[in-house]
Amino acid sequence: MVPESPDQLAWSSIVTNARRHPRSTPADSVLTEVAEAVRLQEGPPGVRSVLRALRRLAPASTKELSRATGLPVPIVAALGNELRRRGLVTEARPSRLTEAGADLVARLGMDLVLDATCRTCDGRELVIPEVLDEAVTRLRALMESGPAADMTIDQSHCTAETKVRRVLALLTAGALPGGSLLLIGDDDLVSLAVAVVGDVLGGPIVEQVTVVDISPEILDHIQKTAAGLGTRIETVQHDLRRPLPAELHGRHDVAMTDPPYTPEGARLFLSRAVEGLRPGPAHSVFFSFGGKSPDEMLEVQREIMELGLVTNGYVRNFNEYEGSGILGGVGFFQHLLTTTSTASRQGEFSGPLYTGDKRTRQREYTCAACDARIRVGPGARWTSVAALREDGCPQCGKGPFRPGRLVPA
Amino acid sequence: MVPESPDQLAWSSIVTNARRHPRSTPADSVLTEVAEAVRLQEGPPGVRSVLRALRRLAPASTKELSRATGLPVPIVAALGNELRRRGLVTEARPSRLTEAGADLVARLGMDLVLDATCRTCDGRELVIPEVLDEAVTRLRALMESGPAADMTIDQSHCTAETKVRRVLALLTAGALPGGSLLLIGDDDLVSLAVAVVGDVLGGPIVEQVTVVDISPEILDHIQKTAAGLGTRIETVQHDLRRPLPAELHGRHDVAMTDPPYTPEGARLFLSRAVEGLRPGPAHSVFFSFGGKSPDEMLEVQREIMELGLVTNGYVRNFNEYEGSGILGGVGFFQHLLTTTSTASRQGEFSGPLYTGDKRTRQREYTCAACDARIRVGPGARWTSVAALREDGCPQCGKGPFRPGRLVPA
Repeated sequence: MVPESPDQLAWSSIVTNARRHPRSTPADSVLTEVAEAVRLQEGPPGVRSVLRALRRLAPASTKELSRATGLPVPIVAALGNELRRRGLVTEARPSRLTEAGADLVARLGMDLVLDATCRTCDGRELVIPEVLDEAVTRLRALMESGPAADMTIDQSHCTAETKVRRVLALLTAGALPGGSLLLIGDDDLVSLAVAVVGDVLGGPIVEQVTVVDISPEILDHIQKTAAGLGTRIETVQHDLRRPLPAELHGRHDVAMTDPPYTPEGARLFLSRAVEGLRPGPAHSVFFSFGGKSPDEMLEVQREIMELGLVTNGYVRNFNEYEGSGILGGVGFFQHLLTTTSTASRQGEFSGPLYTGDKRTRQREYTCAACDARIRVGPGARWTSVAALREDGCPQCGKGPFRPGRLVPA
Repeated sequence: MVPESPDQLAWSSIVTNARRHPRSTPADSVLTEVAEAVRLQEGPPGVRSVLRALRRLAPASTKELSRATGLPVPIVAALGNELRRRGLVTEARPSRLTEAGADLVARLGMDLVLDATCRTCDGRELVIPEVLDEAVTRLRALMESGPAADMTIDQSHCTAETKVRRVLALLTAGALPGGSLLLIGDDDLVSLAVAVVGDVLGGPIVEQVTVVDISPEILDHIQKTAAGLGTRIETVQHDLRRPLPAELHGRHDVAMTDPPYTPEGARLFLSRAVEGLRPGPAHSVFFSFGGKSPDEMLEVQREIMELGLVTNGYVRNFNEYEGSGILGGVGFFQHLLTTTSTASRQGEFSGPLYTGDKRTRQREYTCAACDARIRVGPGARWTSVAALREDGCPQCGKGPFRPGRLVPA
């Protein structure tokens, strides 16, 4: 990292004094119309957040807006088109509000811009110290010589800065130094980040790192690279659909994973992390994941809860990825702790795991009002839950609908 | 806030190059012994975290160690005594490691100190802009003239800085400006913080604030103070044990609460927040709570999950409180989002709600191995779950044990 100048270090905020307008129903109804036009799961609050971000960041690219709002890029693009059709956003890109758009924002009482996000850490809670700039540079070089990301299994490499920040999170949370670290999948090469940081600091920061991954290419790259770095890295080739080999059970002090971005992927990889940890409460699991809609995130967090893991930290834009367009290139980083009821109940897994597997599957939804179960997806009467919501429950006419399991193929 | 000098703004970290020692079993067993001596629910990892914090911060007060590790002050004090008895920590206060203690830390591979926590925001993700220093000063004065904290109902006032940071979190997350804000309990006077921030910035940042609280003194203080500040504050005197009055249902865009620090308190106040929000996903609820053990936090987060709320942010030391010794004066701040399955199922509540109510109650635990239900607490065979754990399940001899509901009085 280039050392920052003092004025960049300071917070910065733009405060625009608001002209106040009484709230009018038509302004609210624009939000509802736009949300319905793109069948936005986040509803009018989602449209509101895009307008606020436009007001604050304009001119802003779709990707920047995606990052600010947590909405996926294609959704932001669709919203942008709807706002453009209504003359609220400029035809010229990057987008900004038209005069009519600015007027709408003012009528919604949102004509105030104040972003207090810390500019030193960009809201990430921690900062790479200068002494580790060298580690960032070296990791960047190691990434270039390593295997490319395999998009079909949801791989997407995090940046060298993110790798170092993950190591710092381990140290800052007190999970390291010392003890043993288990990596459940490591196409991100966090094992090498731990080794390089140790090398730069003059000695290993961990007793041992164990990497479990399905890819011989990745494990080979890690083994070859780690040879001269002074950190013991054990590599185990293993398909994580199967439980961890017995000799890895109950042995590690802390685990980290960046699983496939589906609830099934989260449950599976976190289950393997739990299998590998020493029993007992207060062991750390660090979990990276991509932004999803609130309903999809509820599913993921239910899996976390069912494993008996509890949240102890959650940074929204912690992880930055190279070339991952859909999510705007960022993802969250969640610090989990084990409890006395933490346990893995996950046997061998044979269902769909990756985003690509799931697009062709149906999912069962339960009507919250009458408990009817309704299939949604390709080949079903409703191909999306938005469509189901529009029609209402076929049994009682109401809703809402809770997502359940994928229908077996 | 006093503007910080550039070198205070910069990150700071102390890196001590580690002498490396091979890991030895005796060092590990000290951790186990100390954890068992104080029946530490967090086990050896908890002892590890205190030793790491001592290594990093020494000399450090019990309160500072509590804050760094997330363990309650009495627990840290007990751990300190055990470490002192073993000659690992100095008799003199504030505490530091003795030579034997430093040697233990080195043998555990923990002789490296690197705290990358951002020094600009202290890991809180956001910073109070200078333009709002005046708001902090004015709120400090308003606190002095307001009602004192009632400790018997778990009141403990957050600092003026915390109040302003909560308002900034609402703005930064895009929940404000605009729309209506619902405060479920407001002895913290967040309503006045919203009004004062609006006044300082030149216009209200919200259409309306609704405060629901049981205390006429607090509501009166808010009404009188808000009169000249330009923000519409509606106050409703109401016992939150009962569902919200019908006219408040489904009306608000965003809610905030700092409930009693029990799972029952969390569920109850969050249920009332949910009742007051407009239906649909992606509405924000901001939730403040005190540090508990992982097992207790799992209970709280299960309540959150059962309400259909999903985590979108979690800052560990966000909230600072005046005169709240037990938790080291800090608490976390969790940003929750509604989903399509968010709903309150909480009717009238008559059980114990506050920390003080609960100390005299038994709780039912379920053995994870055989499903036996065992009562724990005053008057029961086991007065603490640590004691039950030590003996093992009376039916199958195993465990672990999952916490259930309090036993009705």
